[in-house]
Amino acid sequence: MDERAALALLEGELDPVGDDAAVVDGLIVTTDMLHERTDFPPGTSRYTAGWRSVGASLSDVAAMGAGATAAVAAYAAPEFVEDELLAFVRGARDVCELVDGEYVGGDLDGHEEFTVATTAIGRTDDPVPRSGARPGDVVCVTGTLGRSAAALELFRRGERETDPDARGRANELFRFEPRIAAGRALAPHATAMMDSSDGLARSLHQLTEASDCGFAIDGEAIPVDDAVRSVSETDREALERATTFGEDFELVATVPETALEAVRDAVDVPLSTIGTVLESDDGISLDGEPLADRGYTHGEG
Amino acid sequence: MDERAALALLEGELDPVGDDAAVVDGLIVTTDMLHERTDFPPGTSRYTAGWRSVGASLSDVAAMGAGATAAVAAYAAPEFVEDELLAFVRGARDVCELVDGEYVGGDLDGHEEFTVATTAIGRTDDPVPRSGARPGDVVCVTGTLGRSAAALELFRRGERETDPDARGRANELFRFEPRIAAGRALAPHATAMMDSSDGLARSLHQLTEASDCGFAIDGEAIPVDDAVRSVSETDREALERATTFGEDFELVATVPETALEAVRDAVDVPLSTIGTVLESDDGISLDGEPLADRGYTHGEG
Repeated sequence: MDERAALALLEGELDPVGDDAAVVDGLIVTTDMLHERTDFPPGTSRYTAGWRSVGASLSDVAAMGAGATAAVAAYAAPEFVEDELLAFVRGARDVCELVDGEYVGGDLDGHEEFTVATTAIGRTDDPVPRSGARPGDVVCVTGTLGRSAAALELFRRGERETDPDARGRANELFRFEPRIAAGRALAPHATAMMDSSDGLARSLHQLTEASDCGFAIDGEAIPVDDAVRSVSETDREALERATTFGEDFELVATVPETALEAVRDAVDVPLSTIGTVLESDDGISLDGEPLADRGYTHGEG
Repeated sequence: MDERAALALLEGELDPVGDDAAVVDGLIVTTDMLHERTDFPPGTSRYTAGWRSVGASLSDVAAMGAGATAAVAAYAAPEFVEDELLAFVRGARDVCELVDGEYVGGDLDGHEEFTVATTAIGRTDDPVPRSGARPGDVVCVTGTLGRSAAALELFRRGERETDPDARGRANELFRFEPRIAAGRALAPHATAMMDSSDGLARSLHQLTEASDCGFAIDGEAIPVDDAVRSVSETDREALERATTFGEDFELVATVPETALEAVRDAVDVPLSTIGTVLESDDGISLDGEPLADRGYTHGEG
């Protein structure tokens, strides 16, 4: 069974599977596990690893339209090196502070492969599900897509820093601001929302499944990050990376067209309208062509 | 740096380190990571693994005197086998239901070694720290000690079940009831509290460090479980295992002598008074002999 089949199996067992995070008793709870081999390519500093792993969970909180309350991390490594550990905690704490959450530590654990498990907790009275998109709604994306793809390409080309606290260009691109504030601003208007951690293409497919709808997406409108353009040979390659690589942790939301102006006023980051919601029979098209369900499957990358 | 040195390092960085769980904004949050090699000996069924890993985090919530709100788990394994996954979830859910918490799922992740990261969330307005024990207080322990040591010995002797859902004798001993109800009943009276996950001896040492006190412990009064007696050659060996093996997830609390009767009435499980709190200069003695700081260090076992 691959990860997606296993998740589908659990949907029958556990109600909350299917959204970015669980909702329980007014709280939003989400957990992730990341591993050196699959999630932290050579060059990723421990500062970035701390930021990124905790940030990934905070992004799930953001995707529900919730505020960030707290995050914890379990840090497992073959050895505990003071500089590495402190850099990790610094990154974890900085990303929490950026979104007004509190990093409250966690567990330490001896383990062969550097592995991090994070949990973030948020609060909202009115979580935004993936299931409410309606034909006629507009599809929006926060920020830009392709930063992580660009970071990976730079790491691959040798932009590797050895300082655990390194924050150079590739590491900078590999970090991100969890869209807590944008998610809260979108929440009163959004009919459906999730984050783009598995890539825009896969996110759109997951939204159509949850909302029983289709999408017409305009390739020109997709906010391709300059960094991924600069490491790509063609615009087409850059668009492909921005659409399918994932790990960008932007929000993908659907909002009624009448709410678009209010949303633009409220959201504090660039917001691109990239398409419209159709009936489910229409499927998902990018510039008129069917958009395949390709993207990043966590733990298999 | 070993795990304890690393934890000591982080105490300077993060305030909440030093209690069983962090307190933030009215919530109790705690996280743990467990690995097949160090935490799930051959014979442990996936049902037991789900129960035990989530239960360990719930025990930390109990140690703060809090009620259980929710728990999540990230499940990482080389492959996802339907029976194993469902048995794990069943165990995780059953232990949550036992303490009126909600298991809300988590993350799935491909990984070489079966690894579980759990987070539990609780609520209390008045968390019990490790730091309030006062000379003259009585030292109490819930339940019995040595169940996990007995389970391990039975696994070692070949009592291994292959069914993922197995709940035979060794697996039964390897599960436990997180002391949420007892913790809540103790909370109004307890001056200090923690769980015995690292063994009674180490817990007592940690309480003396936090509370700046000493203890006189009566070996006869330590509630040695019958199961660990039955796998030990002598009473002395059984007591040694019950005192230092750990992983039993009982509560160790100090309460004023005047509150003892009220505590006994309120707590719904056997409660043993095993000693008294002394001044810090007195150190920790067991039947008049110094009690060494020996026990289970997570992740190194």
